[in-house]
Amino acid sequence: MSSFLGELIGTLILTLFGCGVVGGVVLNKSKAQDSGWIVITLGWGFAVAFAVYLVGKYSGAHVNPAVTLGLATIGLFPWADVPMYIAGQMIGAFIGATLVYLHYYPHWAETEDKDAKLAVFATGPAINNPMANLFSEILGTAILVFGLLGIGANKFSEGLNPLIVGFFIAAIGLSFGGTTGYAINPARDLGPRLAHFFMPIAGKRDSDWTYAWIPVVGPILGGVCGALLYKAIVM
Amino acid sequence: MSSFLGELIGTLILTLFGCGVVGGVVLNKSKAQDSGWIVITLGWGFAVAFAVYLVGKYSGAHVNPAVTLGLATIGLFPWADVPMYIAGQMIGAFIGATLVYLHYYPHWAETEDKDAKLAVFATGPAINNPMANLFSEILGTAILVFGLLGIGANKFSEGLNPLIVGFFIAAIGLSFGGTTGYAINPARDLGPRLAHFFMPIAGKRDSDWTYAWIPVVGPILGGVCGALLYKAIVM
Amino acid sequence: MSSFLGELIGTLILTLFGCGVVGGVVLNKSKAQDSGWIVITLGWGFAVAFAVYLVGKYSGAHVNPAVTLGLATIGLFPWADVPMYIAGQMIGAFIGATLVYLHYYPHWAETEDKDAKLAVFATGPAINNPMANLFSEILGTAILVFGLLGIGANKFSEGLNPLIVGFFIAAIGLSFGGTTGYAINPARDLGPRLAHFFMPIAGKRDSDWTYAWIPVVGPILGGVCGALLYKAIVM
Amino acid sequence: MSSFLGELIGTLILTLFGCGVVGGVVLNKSKAQDSGWIVITLGWGFAVAFAVYLVGKYSGAHVNPAVTLGLATIGLFPWADVPMYIAGQMIGAFIGATLVYLHYYPHWAETEDKDAKLAVFATGPAINNPMANLFSEILGTAILVFGLLGIGANKFSEGLNPLIVGFFIAAIGLSFGGTTGYAINPARDLGPRLAHFFMPIAGKRDSDWTYAWIPVVGPILGGVCGALLYKAIVM
Repeated sequence: MSSFLGELIGTLILTLFGCGVVGGVVLNKSKAQDSGWIVITLGWGFAVAFAVYLVGKYSGAHVNPAVTLGLATIGLFPWADVPMYIAGQMIGAFIGATLVYLHYYPHWAETEDKDAKLAVFATGPAINNPMANLFSEILGTAILVFGLLGIGANKFSEGLNPLIVGFFIAAIGLSFGGTTGYAINPARDLGPRLAHFFMPIAGKRDSDWTYAWIPVVGPILGGVCGALLYKAIVM
Repeated sequence: MSSFLGELIGTLILTLFGCGVVGGVVLNKSKAQDSGWIVITLGWGFAVAFAVYLVGKYSGAHVNPAVTLGLATIGLFPWADVPMYIAGQMIGAFIGATLVYLHYYPHWAETEDKDAKLAVFATGPAINNPMANLFSEILGTAILVFGLLGIGANKFSEGLNPLIVGFFIAAIGLSFGGTTGYAINPARDLGPRLAHFFMPIAGKRDSDWTYAWIPVVGPILGGVCGALLYKAIVM
Repeated sequence: MSSFLGELIGTLILTLFGCGVVGGVVLNKSKAQDSGWIVITLGWGFAVAFAVYLVGKYSGAHVNPAVTLGLATIGLFPWADVPMYIAGQMIGAFIGATLVYLHYYPHWAETEDKDAKLAVFATGPAINNPMANLFSEILGTAILVFGLLGIGANKFSEGLNPLIVGFFIAAIGLSFGGTTGYAINPARDLGPRLAHFFMPIAGKRDSDWTYAWIPVVGPILGGVCGALLYKAIVM
Repeated sequence: MSSFLGELIGTLILTLFGCGVVGGVVLNKSKAQDSGWIVITLGWGFAVAFAVYLVGKYSGAHVNPAVTLGLATIGLFPWADVPMYIAGQMIGAFIGATLVYLHYYPHWAETEDKDAKLAVFATGPAINNPMANLFSEILGTAILVFGLLGIGANKFSEGLNPLIVGFFIAAIGLSFGGTTGYAINPARDLGPRLAHFFMPIAGKRDSDWTYAWIPVVGPILGGVCGALLYKAIVM
C-alpha cells in the first residue's frame, strides 16, 4: 500500500468510526442515543487507534494534517510529501463521512434537530467565541502533537502504541473536548463538513462555514506549536 | 481440544457473555438495568476478547461464520473445514444463549416488555428499513473482517491481540451499533434467536423471523466484501 | 512476604477497592453517587487486577477460596495449603471492609437506605429465588475459574495478565452481575458481611444471614465445576 | 530535560488534563457536562498515565510531593533532591491549572455555581468532617504509594507501566474518591487552588483555604505511611 493510500484509508477509518459514534449518540431512534461523553470519547479514541493499527506500517498513520505539518516543521517529515499526505487525508475523511451518511440513512428524516445532524459531521463551539474557540483548538492540538512525539516520535504505530495513542486521543477528548468538540484535526472537520454540504441529508441546516476556519486554522497552529515546543524542550 | 470444539466453546462464551450483558441492561429488576450503551459495547467487546483468549490456540477463534467465510474466500482458510466451523459456531451460540435464559430465570416473568426479552437474544432494527439495515450489517461486518485481517491476519489470537480484538469489537459497537444492534455475526444472531424460539421464556413474543435473514445475509456479504477488499488493497 | 500474608493483603486490597467502589455509588452525598454499573464493574475489575499485581508473586493471588478450592480439586494446588489460604483470604476480606467502613464514616448517618448500606459490604439477590440465585453464583464462578485457567493456568499474575484478569472480572460483572451482584467469591462476601455485622454502622439493618449461604456455597460449587470442566475439556 | 523540568512539565500535564476533565463535567454549556464519575476518574487516570509517558524517563515522573516524600522516607530517593522536585511540581501544577482557566474562558461567566467553579481547581469534602476527610486522604495516598512501589518500585515509567499506573489512579478514584474528591497529591490541590485564587475567574467564590490543609497534610502523611508499610511488609 502506498503512503498516499495509507493516509486515505487511515483517515477514512478515522471519520467512519468517529462520525459514526457521534451519529449513534445524537440521532433519533439510534440504540446508542444519549449514551453520553464516555461513548463519544472512547469512540474517537478507538477510531484513531484502529486507523493507526491498519495503516501505521504504510504511511505512519498521521491521519491528520496538523500532525503532518507539525512533523515537517521540526524536520521529522519531508515537506515534499506534505501535499500528498494532506490530499489523502482530505479524500479519506470525505469518503468516511459519506459512508456514515449512508449507514444512518433512515435516521436523518427521523431526527428533527438540525444542529445534531451537523454535529455528526463537523465540530461546533459550545459557546460562540472565536478567540476562545481558536485557543481551545490550538491548545488541544499542541498537546496532541507534543504527546505523540513524546510517546514515540515517528514510531507511534509500533507494538501496543496504537492503543496507547487511542487512549491519548480519548484523554484529550475527556479533558479538553467540552468547549469546541475537539476537532484537533483539519481533515477530520473539513472533510466531513464537505460531506454534510454535498450529501442530500434529509432536513439539514447549512454547514456552518462561518465557524469552519477555526477547526482548520487552530489545529494547524497548534500542531506546529506542539512540535516546536517538543523540539525546544525535549529534542 | 479439536478445532470443532474450539469454535463451539468460543462461540458459547461469546453469546454467554454477550447475551448476558444485554439481559443485565434490559431486564427488569436487574442490578445493571438501564446502564446503557457503554456497558453493552464493552460487554460484547470483552465477550469476544475472552472467547479468543480461551480458544484461540485451538481453532483460531473465528467464533463467527462471516469471519470463517471471509477467510476462506481469500484463501486463508480451507473451504473443506467451513461446514464444521459453522456447525460448531451455531451449536455454541445456541447453548450460550440457553445458559443466559437460565441465568436470568426469575427475571423473565418480571419483565413486561416483550421486545426487550427478544433483544437479549437477537438483534433488531432501530428503524425498520430492510435495505438500510442490510447495508448497516454489511458495512459493520466488512469493517470487522478488514480490521481483523489488518490487525494480524490469521494470528489475532496471539499475545495481547485478543484484548485488542475485543476493543475493536467494542469500537464497532460504539460507532455502528446504533442502527441494527450490530449482529455482524450470523451465529451470534441466529443461534440465540433459536434459543428464544425454543426456550419456555415467560411472556415472550414471536422470534421476529421476518427480520432474521438480515443479520445472517448482511454479515456474510460483509465478511466476504471485507476480506476481498483487504486482499485487493493490502495483500 | 509469606503466601499467607500475600493472600491476606491481596484479599484486603480486593475488598478495600471493591467495597469502596460500591460505597461510592450507593451512599448518600458521595461524589460518585448513582454513577452506575460501569463504575461498579470497572471498580471491582481493577480491585482484582491490583490485588494480583501486588501479591501475585508471593501467593499466586488467588484472593478467593473458590479459586483455591478449584485449583486444589484438579491437582494444581496442594490441599495442605488450602486452610491457610482461606484463612488469609477471610482475614484480609474482613480488614479491607473495615477500612471501607472507616473511609465512609460520615456517610453512614447521612444514608437512610439500610439495604444500600448492607450492599456496600455483601451481595444480595435482585429477585429472591434461592435456586436461581445459587445457579447464578455457580455459573459466574465456573466461568471465572475456567477462564482464569484458560488465560494462564497457575501463572495469571505474570506480565500484563493482572490487567487482563481485571478486565475478565469486569466482563463477568457486566454480563452476569445483574442477578445476584456477582459475589463469585466466598471471602469477598462473608468477610465484609461479618464487618457489617460487627462494625457500629449508623442505622444499619441486619446482615441478611438468610441469604449468606448462597454466595458461599454457590461460588465453591462453581469454582470446583469450572476447574473440573477445564480439566475435562482442555487439560 | 532536567529532572526539575521533568517534574514541572509532568505535573503541568497532570493538572492540565485533570482539572480539564473536571471543567468539562461541571461547567455550564460544556459538551461534556454531567457526564459523570466514569469520565472524571478515567480523565484523571489518563492524566497521570500521560504525565508518566512524557516525563518518566527524565525525572521518574513522581508528579506528586507525597510520592517524592514517600520514596525519600524509605531511602529510594535522595532527600537533597526533594525541595527541587516539590518546587517543580508546584510550579507545574499552577501553570497547568492556569491553562485550564484559559481553555474554559467563556464558560466561567456562564456558570452560576461558584462551588463548581472552585471544584475545577481544588478538591473539597462531600461531608465536612475534618478528621474523616483527613483519614480519607491518608488512606487514598497510602494505597497510592504502596501500590506504585508494588507495581514497580522506582521504575513505574517503564514499558506499559504508565498505562497501568493510570488505571491504578482511575481505580483509586472509582473506589475512594467519593468522600473528598481524592486529592492524594498536595501539588495537584494546592497549585490549582492558587490558580483559582489569582486568576480573574468570573463570579468566583473564595478558594476555601479553611479546607486547604487537608489535601496537603493528608497526602503527605499517607504517602509516608504507604512507603513505610511497603518497606515493612515487602522490602
